[in-house]
Amino acid sequence: MNFLEERILRDGIVKEGNVLKVDSFLNHQMDISLFEQMGEEFKKRFAGKEINKIVTIEASGIGIACVVAKYFNVPVVFAKKSKSINIEGDMYVAEVESFTHKCKNQVIVSKKFLSPEDKVLIIDDFLANGCALQGLISIITEAGASVEGIGIAIEKGFQMGGRLIRNLGYQLESLAIVDSMNADTKEIVFREQ
Amino acid sequence: MNFLEERILRDGIVKEGNVLKVDSFLNHQMDISLFEQMGEEFKKRFAGKEINKIVTIEASGIGIACVVAKYFNVPVVFAKKSKSINIEGDMYVAEVESFTHKCKNQVIVSKKFLSPEDKVLIIDDFLANGCALQGLISIITEAGASVEGIGIAIEKGFQMGGRLIRNLGYQLESLAIVDSMNADTKEIVFREQ
Repeated sequence: MNFLEERILRDGIVKEGNVLKVDSFLNHQMDISLFEQMGEEFKKRFAGKEINKIVTIEASGIGIACVVAKYFNVPVVFAKKSKSINIEGDMYVAEVESFTHKCKNQVIVSKKFLSPEDKVLIIDDFLANGCALQGLISIITEAGASVEGIGIAIEKGFQMGGRLIRNLGYQLESLAIVDSMNADTKEIVFREQ
Repeated sequence: MNFLEERILRDGIVKEGNVLKVDSFLNHQMDISLFEQMGEEFKKRFAGKEINKIVTIEASGIGIACVVAKYFNVPVVFAKKSKSINIEGDMYVAEVESFTHKCKNQVIVSKKFLSPEDKVLIIDDFLANGCALQGLISIITEAGASVEGIGIAIEKGFQMGGRLIRNLGYQLESLAIVDSMNADTKEIVFREQ
């Protein structure tokens, strides 16, 4: 069991409807030392990859991405969520469905900050059905940049996002993959890695 | 002239309507080395203050806060923007008007993550009319926690936010205070500190 799985068992809260609350250390209150451990681990898992930019999506991906970026010595670009239909022409746009909020958002990145020279590591806190991730991949691909890898803190292994992304051939590294959880017994089962 | 003022002169773009675009290094693409310099500088400016938590607001404050937090060795809590009126009772709520987006938002922080024991440093990227900041102060005060200081990257000195907050007695440290800017000549005048 790794440091993140241990932390999830200690401080994560399983709720009805396959909800895993990790807001005391990951996505509302944020434990920076934990993010540093994640940075070290991602650096190992993506060793040998030539990465010159990290891309994430607002809001809860930003903190992890900025701490992880120190280990790769690269800048971070975060995709912004926007409800407006009138996007200036200098933006890459993707449509993203939110599982949590049950709505559609546009996700935008300025064309200034992604180009064919960019070798991107995508970082995010959660992967469930993968909609946000697909939006990011679509934007990065449209820019002519390459997705060198994807680093996720927690993957819900019982939803289809992870399998889909791996089937597409991407190197997707999730530090903790939850295969099942039970709101009654509070049990969380992680996938062996 | 300090490192941030130099960077603003080099990469900032002055637009009509007193808009200063710093999205190439501060609030869309983010230069993590620059954020580290900001962390060192805030650590100096708030030396002697006993700080055990950093509070910021989504989205563009999060990256700076997480990098700065390393220098204080404390966790970060970010206030979430929410349009919904039905907030669960376990949240502190403040109403915040957005200057950029010309709308009202509710800003929320879970009651779990702010308590009377907390000695808070507020971190944000921009200070203009100070609405976001007032919302954060209101939430922290409601929790019974204390605001030990406020660290801002760029303050628009020609708007009233900074003066108002200083008049209230808070230690507000802005790394760059823009006293005026001119979209025609591209000139930016910083306040001497």
